[in-house]
Amino acid sequence: MGAEFDRDISVNAIAHPSGGEGAYSADLSGGWVVGGGVNGGYLLATIGNAIRETVPAKPDPFSISAYYLSASVPGPATITTAIKRDGGSVATVAAELTQDGVSRITALATYGDLSALPDQHETTATAPDLPPREECVPNAMAPERMRTIAPMMERFEMLFHPDHIGWAVGQPSGRGVISAWFRLKDGREPDPLSLLTIVDLLPPVTFDLGRPGWAPTLELTVHVRAMPAPGWLQVRHATRNVAGGMFEEDCEIWDSAGRLVAQSRQLARLPRG
Amino acid sequence: MGAEFDRDISVNAIAHPSGGEGAYSADLSGGWVVGGGVNGGYLLATIGNAIRETVPAKPDPFSISAYYLSASVPGPATITTAIKRDGGSVATVAAELTQDGVSRITALATYGDLSALPDQHETTATAPDLPPREECVPNAMAPERMRTIAPMMERFEMLFHPDHIGWAVGQPSGRGVISAWFRLKDGREPDPLSLLTIVDLLPPVTFDLGRPGWAPTLELTVHVRAMPAPGWLQVRHATRNVAGGMFEEDCEIWDSAGRLVAQSRQLARLPRG
Repeated sequence: MGAEFDRDISVNAIAHPSGGEGAYSADLSGGWVVGGGVNGGYLLATIGNAIRETVPAKPDPFSISAYYLSASVPGPATITTAIKRDGGSVATVAAELTQDGVSRITALATYGDLSALPDQHETTATAPDLPPREECVPNAMAPERMRTIAPMMERFEMLFHPDHIGWAVGQPSGRGVISAWFRLKDGREPDPLSLLTIVDLLPPVTFDLGRPGWAPTLELTVHVRAMPAPGWLQVRHATRNVAGGMFEEDCEIWDSAGRLVAQSRQLARLPRG
Repeated sequence: MGAEFDRDISVNAIAHPSGGEGAYSADLSGGWVVGGGVNGGYLLATIGNAIRETVPAKPDPFSISAYYLSASVPGPATITTAIKRDGGSVATVAAELTQDGVSRITALATYGDLSALPDQHETTATAPDLPPREECVPNAMAPERMRTIAPMMERFEMLFHPDHIGWAVGQPSGRGVISAWFRLKDGREPDPLSLLTIVDLLPPVTFDLGRPGWAPTLELTVHVRAMPAPGWLQVRHATRNVAGGMFEEDCEIWDSAGRLVAQSRQLARLPRG
């Protein structure tokens, strides 16, 4: 089994630079570059991995909130962690990712054990209405120019709903919805950490509003709601409120067993231009 | 004009207990008690007020995320703040509320100036379909027993959609939606800080699923999307995924001008029983 993703998000315990609790080194992979920075979801999974190391008995993110302070670059990074509370079935941890002393992301998270939760689900949300994969539009068809701007596209297969890909040929639907089938190319099956990345991998939903370009995230919160089953995922981005130069982007991830395994929302700035 | 709410969320700068940046004292009002604790939205507005004092040139919460660590009690509290980044049009601040040295809430927020944003809005979300106020069910009709459990109900007028109040007479709809007209009783008009409270004031949406009782919040993120106009607000709670003993509760607040002024999501535990 390929483990490119696991290598990319790996962290190593180091001495804390200022005598605090947890500290980890990471090497941010150039493979997750998109536009002028490193993908925010990949960074979140790397931070999420450091938090998992900090509270190993509570391995899974129930909720994680990241505030993006400055654009990360490929290469060395330090992640510090501090336990805010560890008691009962959950632990809450603060984390910060810095590069050369510059803070990139500050985050809070509550971790627990998804496999210890009751096997209960009553979901009125509905999965994306994706056609069979052979009728969808693969990201492998993206033009060379786009693949150069977004090397991260080599990391995964993304098969777009044909009704949500008009923006690629200058015909955005204007509805503010993009959905796609998804899996990592290295064959790695989804787990709670990879979901933290996958919520941020589709193009900004503003592409479907006729506003292409980079949409910098201010804040991203992910709730992992169940352990994902192996296989293809279905991912949907949607926005319902563009205002004051910002928009919210909601993401849902559904697994191959038909369960809603992650819900996220981010607040992002509209692309310029 | 009444200013009970402003008094209740007021903070005073004090010397930092451990030599850090901002520190404030607060006196948590017993008027916001609900069940076994103090309302999480009221606590969030108090923290939000301390953050405003920390970065006064950026007075409005664009996004704030709170992780609830232990139940607060009425009385003295300390809020410490630390600026994570202050540059350009926004500032990101960490804050923590403690009582007697016990951490109650840890939070992150990005603040800016809502009045400086472009007056742009393209909203496909739709306002709650509330009947005229005289056809709605006022919280003043709540039984004495409930008013004793939730003294905070004296702070506001809440006029429920008649289709979303069946739970009050043992007939929950099962849809997972509650909506209501809202205003503070003291006549104070809505502002970005009061919105942080109002997203958490309706009964837990699980009441409408036939699961009454206290639903402790793990995490709550609020995005304030526009400066609210004076007058009555429309508030809607909804959930679409109850799983593993937890549920997400989405809240929208619409102002009297018909704008979506706040969106929030929280992850909470299902009531026991």
